Amino acid sequence: MILPVAFTGGEIGVWRVERIDAVVGAPLPIVSRLGMVEGQKAIAATATWVLRGVTSDQRYTRRAEHEALTATQAQLGRPEATCAALIPITKSEAWWGLTQDERRELFEERSHHIAIGLEYLPAVARRLHYGRDLGEAFDFLTWFEYPEESRAAFEELVARLRLTPEWEFVEREIDIRLTR
Amino acid sequence: MILPVAFTGGEIGVWRVERIDAVVGAPLPIVSRLGMVEGQKAIAATATWVLRGVTSDQRYTRRAEHEALTATQAQLGRPEATCAALIPITKSEAWWGLTQDERRELFEERSHHIAIGLEYLPAVARRLHYGRDLGEAFDFLTWFEYPEESRAAFEELVARLRLTPEWEFVEREIDIRLTR
Repeated sequence: MILPVAFTGGEIGVWRVERIDAVVGAPLPIVSRLGMVEGQKAIAATATWVLRGVTSDQRYTRRAEHEALTATQAQLGRPEATCAALIPITKSEAWWGLTQDERRELFEERSHHIAIGLEYLPAVARRLHYGRDLGEAFDFLTWFEYPEESRAAFEELVARLRLTPEWEFVEREIDIRLTR
Repeated sequence: MILPVAFTGGEIGVWRVERIDAVVGAPLPIVSRLGMVEGQKAIAATATWVLRGVTSDQRYTRRAEHEALTATQAQLGRPEATCAALIPITKSEAWWGLTQDERRELFEERSHHIAIGLEYLPAVARRLHYGRDLGEAFDFLTWFEYPEESRAAFEELVARLRLTPEWEFVEREIDIRLTR
């Protein structure tokens, strides 16, 4: 299903911003609150920035991987998931110039992106939003929700992914940590 | 590269409409002219309908297939290519619920979509535009340009693709034929 989602940075929103780090590339202005607006609902005109994406079909996941993910993963919105992270990412033209088989090879056979993610389920719930076809500054907006006791596990997940061959193609990455 | 493209149906545009057939699903209003607007240029407010898409990364093509295509294919805008076709297509939720490996298997190993297309290069030039992530009515806008003497070959190409297993997932298809 295609669900448009807007992440708004400003002074309103249910998520309190702990920190905004520019991991690679240009930073994003610091804000105190973040909101997530799903569907066609109105967006506060006072937002300092708005990042848009859509949920869409999966681009690399195979059937067996999909089954493993859906058997284990948690839904968004769990009451105990009081921590969240929004990690907007843009990959290089070199990445997008690769063919589907080359990107898949880098993504999973060499970087084990799905396999690593699976190790952190169901503690870390996630949703991927695509912005590239929309002409947005970020190709992907990755959203994660996890309980307080999974903070260290989440740090480990993020650190492991950043060491993969896939990450050599990341030319902009912002790491926004949130609590509610 | 992400290039936004709008196809406008109305009374202006360089392409004269020969016919508009609803192959599957709801028809599109008949118009006399079609225009193609690339990038962020203004669109005539008088257009009867506007179909939007973006060129994007290839979703199924492997390296060897990509090399075969780029070695053979012609560019858009050849003076001798006085015939064109715009074929907007929407696939079913059953298609989009498949995983990447299942869609690839249907697309190429069972339907030979790339292999069939290759047989008609370089006579038929083509460009694919994605509309699904934009929330457009059509998932794909496929655009073809070919010379007068390739009319029969193009009919054959379209007929062969419509007989493939992939096409069982097409729930809306319009066939718009054009000359200039």
